[in-house]
Amino acid sequence: MQTIVQKYGGTSVGSAERIKEIAKRVLQARETNQRIVVVVSAMGKTTNNLISLSKEISPTPCAREYDALISTGENVSAALLAMAIQEHGIPAISLTGYQAGIITENKYSKAKIIDVNTERLEKELNEGKVVVITGFQGINNAQDVTTIGRGGSDTSAVVLAAALKSPVCEIYTDVDGIYTTDPRIVKNARKIPEMAYDEILELATLGAKVLHPRAIECAKHNNINIHVRSSFNDSLGTIVKEDSHMEINRNVTGAALLDETVVTIKGVPDQPGIAGVLFSKLAEESINIDMIVQSADANHVNTITFTVLDDELGRAQTITEQVAKEIGAAEVVIDEHVTKLSIVGVGMISQPGVAARFFDILGKNSINIKLISTSEIKISCAIDREVSHQALQLVHDEFGLDAI
Amino acid sequence: MQTIVQKYGGTSVGSAERIKEIAKRVLQARETNQRIVVVVSAMGKTTNNLISLSKEISPTPCAREYDALISTGENVSAALLAMAIQEHGIPAISLTGYQAGIITENKYSKAKIIDVNTERLEKELNEGKVVVITGFQGINNAQDVTTIGRGGSDTSAVVLAAALKSPVCEIYTDVDGIYTTDPRIVKNARKIPEMAYDEILELATLGAKVLHPRAIECAKHNNINIHVRSSFNDSLGTIVKEDSHMEINRNVTGAALLDETVVTIKGVPDQPGIAGVLFSKLAEESINIDMIVQSADANHVNTITFTVLDDELGRAQTITEQVAKEIGAAEVVIDEHVTKLSIVGVGMISQPGVAARFFDILGKNSINIKLISTSEIKISCAIDREVSHQALQLVHDEFGLDAI
Repeated sequence: MQTIVQKYGGTSVGSAERIKEIAKRVLQARETNQRIVVVVSAMGKTTNNLISLSKEISPTPCAREYDALISTGENVSAALLAMAIQEHGIPAISLTGYQAGIITENKYSKAKIIDVNTERLEKELNEGKVVVITGFQGINNAQDVTTIGRGGSDTSAVVLAAALKSPVCEIYTDVDGIYTTDPRIVKNARKIPEMAYDEILELATLGAKVLHPRAIECAKHNNINIHVRSSFNDSLGTIVKEDSHMEINRNVTGAALLDETVVTIKGVPDQPGIAGVLFSKLAEESINIDMIVQSADANHVNTITFTVLDDELGRAQTITEQVAKEIGAAEVVIDEHVTKLSIVGVGMISQPGVAARFFDILGKNSINIKLISTSEIKISCAIDREVSHQALQLVHDEFGLDAI
Repeated sequence: MQTIVQKYGGTSVGSAERIKEIAKRVLQARETNQRIVVVVSAMGKTTNNLISLSKEISPTPCAREYDALISTGENVSAALLAMAIQEHGIPAISLTGYQAGIITENKYSKAKIIDVNTERLEKELNEGKVVVITGFQGINNAQDVTTIGRGGSDTSAVVLAAALKSPVCEIYTDVDGIYTTDPRIVKNARKIPEMAYDEILELATLGAKVLHPRAIECAKHNNINIHVRSSFNDSLGTIVKEDSHMEINRNVTGAALLDETVVTIKGVPDQPGIAGVLFSKLAEESINIDMIVQSADANHVNTITFTVLDDELGRAQTITEQVAKEIGAAEVVIDEHVTKLSIVGVGMISQPGVAARFFDILGKNSINIKLISTSEIKISCAIDREVSHQALQLVHDEFGLDAI
C-alpha cells in the first residue's frame, strides 16, 4: 500500500490552534490512505529563539551542543501533533530522529542523511498509526543528535518518502505554492502550477525559500513529485517534477532575492593554489560559498571576491583573515549591504539575449552590478541591498512574469 | 576518584545570564575535583508552558506523547550549560536521559528509574569532561522517552550520585536551604542547618517543595548526604543526612502547607472491599492519594473521603465517579478550597501532647479542622485554604520554630 508523506513547516504548526487544524488535514488524507507519515518543523519562531539563546551563551558554540539544542523544537511540535490526531480517535505516535531511524553522517549542523532504518517506522505504520516525525534532525553513530541544516525538514520529508517508496511528498507551507517571485515584494507575482526540479533547485538555492535545495535534489534523484501547497486552504499548489514540455515557451520562470555579504581579499600574490587553500578551509568548516570572482591587475596582484550568507560571515571572516595573513595578502574587506538578484528558467539556455536584457534593465535604472554569476538556467548579480526590491520588480516586469 | 553530583533547578538556570553564573560555579567545583556531573531542570517556566500547550490540544493527552513533550525543556538547558562551561575552555558534554543510560520502567509520567548504564557517562568523565545531564527524563526498553514525575530532577541527581558512588549530592535551588516553614508566608521562619532524611521526607511529601520525596528515599537508601543550598550565593545550606543526636531537643522541626482537593463519596454501601476497589483503580492511573478517612453512620452507609493534589483532580474525579456508579453510592462531592497544614519532627514521638497543642491553637483561633492524618513524626490536618497562612504562622509561633 502506498504511503503518503506530508510535511508541515513552522508557520503551519505555529500554535495549538494551528496544530489542531493540521490534525484535521491529516485525517482527511487518512480517509483514503492508511499509511500516513507526517514530518513537522518546530513551532513558529522556536528554533530562532533557541539560536538567540545559544548566542547569548557563546558566539561560536560547540556544534554538537548546538545541534542538541536547536533540534528540540521539533520534538515539541511532533508530540503535540500526535496528541491532536489522537484526539480524533485515530492512533498516532511521534518519533524523533533517532526513533525514526534517521541516520546521518557524523558532521553537525549540516549533516547529510546517509540511511533510514525504517524498522520501527514500518512497525508503527503496520499497526495503523499515523507516524509524526521530527524534521530537521537525525542521529549519528555516536548516538548523538545531529541537525541537517536550516529548512532541513523538507529534506527529512523527501528522504522518508524515498525510504518508504512514496511517489509524492506534500510540502505544506504558509504560501499557496511557488511564485514567480516573492509576492510580498512584487505585487503582481504569479503562482507557477508546474515546474522542473532544476528550476526550483536554482530558485531555492537563490533564496526563494520555498523548498530546501537538498530536498529537491533528493526528490529528483528518487523521482518523487513534490506538491508545495498551503496548509491554510485547499487550493492546489505547485507540482515540482521532471522537466516536461510545458516550459518550452518560457525563458524565465522566476526571480529571487537573497541577502548576502561580499568578502574581498585584496592584494593576493599571483601564485597558483591560493584560491584552493582558501576555499578548502572554508569548506572544512561547512561554510557555503556562493558567487566567486577572481581578477588580476597589471602588477600580478589578484583580488578574490566571494559571497556568503549573512549569518555565516563571522566564521567566514575569521578563516579568510587567517588565510590572508598566511599568504601575505594586503587586506580583507567586508561589504554587508549586498543582495543577490537572480532569474531562473530552463528555457533560458535556448533564448539568447536574456542576460543582456537582465543587465540592461538594471543599468537603465542606475542600479550598479557588483558581481555576476551565471549557470545554464540562471543569471545572478549582486546589487546594493537598498535597491533590491525595486530591481526585483523591474526584472519581474521585464520578463513578463505577471503573465506566466 | 570521587565524583561530585550537582543539580540545578529551573530558577537557577532560568536565563542565559543565570546559566553563565552556574557555569562559573561548576568550574569552582572542578578546581578541586576532576569528575563533575551536573543535572539540570528545564529553564524557568518552560515545563509549565509545555503543559499548557498540551492542555490546549488535549485535556487528557496520551502519556507517551505527554512525556515526549514535557521532557524537551531539559534538553535545552543541558545543551546551553555545556556550551557555557566550554566557553571557559573546560571540556563539557550534555547527555540526555537515553544518552546517560537512565533506564526507567515502561510507565509514563511517573516512571521509576530502574537502572543507570554508566558506560558512556564513565567514558566522558574519564576523558575529563564535565557531564551535564538532563534531569527528569529517562528511556524505557521501547526506546521511548519517559519522565519521572514533577520535581524529578532531584531524583535524577541522587540516582546518578548513587550509580557513581558519590557520597554527597548538591541540590542548588533558589532558597538558602530548608526552612522551618515557607519564609514567604511566615516572616520569622529559620534555616535548619541539619536534618534527618525522615524529617525532610515528611516535609517534602507535605509540600515544602524543597526536595523531591523519591530523591530523599533514594539518598537514604544509599546513604548519600544531600546538601540543599542556593545557587545565588555561597552560604551553606541544609545538610540532609542520617538521623543524629542533634534533634533530641526538638519536638517539631518544621511546618508546611499543601493545597489539596477533598473528594468525598457519600452513601457508600457498607460492604467489604469497596475502598480497595476505589484506591486500586486510582493507583492504576498513578494518582497519588494523600489523606484517607472513612466513616460510617448508624444506617450502615459509609462516607469515604480522600485528598488529591489539585492538578490530579480531573482524572481522580472521573475514576471516582465511575466507581461510585458501579457500587451504587449516592454522590461524589468535591471541595477544592482546602489546604493541608502539617508539622514534622523526629522528636515528636517522644513528646506527648504535641498533637493536642497543634489542634488547640487552631481551635482557639476558630480554624475548623476538616480531616486529620498522623504518622510517627508528623501531624497533618486539612483546613480552609483562605485561613491557611494565618494557621501556619500560629503553629510556627506555638512550637517556637523561629528559635530553632
